[in-house]
Amino acid sequence: MAIRRVYGSLDSPNTLKVLAAMFEHDIDFEFVPIDIEAGENKRPEFLSMSPFGQIPVYEDGPIRQFECRGVVRSTAHEYAHRKPAGQEIICWEARKQALIANWIDVEDLKFEPAVLAVLNDNNPAAMADNHHHHQSAEANLCKVLDVYEAQLKKHKYLVMDKFTAADLLHLPNLQTLKDNPTTRSLVDARPRVSAWADEILTRPSWVKVVNMIKGC
Amino acid sequence: MAIRRVYGSLDSPNTLKVLAAMFEHDIDFEFVPIDIEAGENKRPEFLSMSPFGQIPVYEDGPIRQFECRGVVRSTAHEYAHRKPAGQEIICWEARKQALIANWIDVEDLKFEPAVLAVLNDNNPAAMADNHHHHQSAEANLCKVLDVYEAQLKKHKYLVMDKFTAADLLHLPNLQTLKDNPTTRSLVDARPRVSAWADEILTRPSWVKVVNMIKGC
Repeated sequence: MAIRRVYGSLDSPNTLKVLAAMFEHDIDFEFVPIDIEAGENKRPEFLSMSPFGQIPVYEDGPIRQFECRGVVRSTAHEYAHRKPAGQEIICWEARKQALIANWIDVEDLKFEPAVLAVLNDNNPAAMADNHHHHQSAEANLCKVLDVYEAQLKKHKYLVMDKFTAADLLHLPNLQTLKDNPTTRSLVDARPRVSAWADEILTRPSWVKVVNMIKGC
Repeated sequence: MAIRRVYGSLDSPNTLKVLAAMFEHDIDFEFVPIDIEAGENKRPEFLSMSPFGQIPVYEDGPIRQFECRGVVRSTAHEYAHRKPAGQEIICWEARKQALIANWIDVEDLKFEPAVLAVLNDNNPAAMADNHHHHQSAEANLCKVLDVYEAQLKKHKYLVMDKFTAADLLHLPNLQTLKDNPTTRSLVDARPRVSAWADEILTRPSWVKVVNMIKGC
């Protein structure tokens, strides 16, 4: 029986990030779907685990974490020994880990907000309402992707020549950008970003997440 | 000669977080003021260090980090040996570090946005314009502080019974909340939050940051 649980929703990019981390490290866990529309995340028993009502929650015995990036970081450390030497998705050397930490925060504060702003604007009602706003959201995402294009000239992955937790955190939103006909061209127009996306989106851990979504 | 540099502004909470980390670990560094109003952060030489033009930047030889939380995390690891055993502001045990990571992300995604929304609304023009919006920003900050009040019933500091990087990251915005007559009462109304703020705001590393600001 799995002693670890992920409470979340397959509609939530942050839940998918944690699921990718579970599969990446072959962690035995149970997925507990939380119905946000039904308000299950606002019930007292859920709030006792996640005081802001946010998903996902990762439960490992008495430890409960409700910030997805923290889960990705900490499982990457805790289960690093399950990876062949040199393929851990974190680094033990403080300065290299610092660079990973830097780009984890870029995903959090630059990439994801830019993607969500474009996607939220992409529904027809919002576009008709606010064409100018949409253009500005898209211009902002382009600026972020241009920084990534420059960064990916330095090495194969975002932080170094190996796949790290910083890359992993980009998977759900990169998949959405690629799946959406309106936004796919933004990725495809940038050769390094496009090659990076194509490679990491075929990673076995992410394929398992995609299959989990398809199975629902 | 300091080989480490912090490029930033004393008006920037994120710069102050990194300065607190420098003093916390007695790191020899040079502070390089960046004039945001003059657009110094958009000049090519600055963008080569910080591709989004954001401050602060922490430079340690060839390593440059531009996300403040990453700097706080990585210096806490790199210089942990300068602290007496048990007083490091991180934990070596993965599950304890996971809890610190969780509350670092809460500061980032819940606490700071809630504080900034209230402070931005507190200028008289904004208040006259939009009284309803202000009330909603204040109600949101109160909800966040209520979660903190409950959390601080469990232990003296935010994550455990010792001061950690998660506490440190709250210093600049806690100071601003306490210094502002309109927002001070929100802290003072919550006894655990108030005691926590009073204690950590007198920490020697933070007092050095405050003195640095006063000296300018």
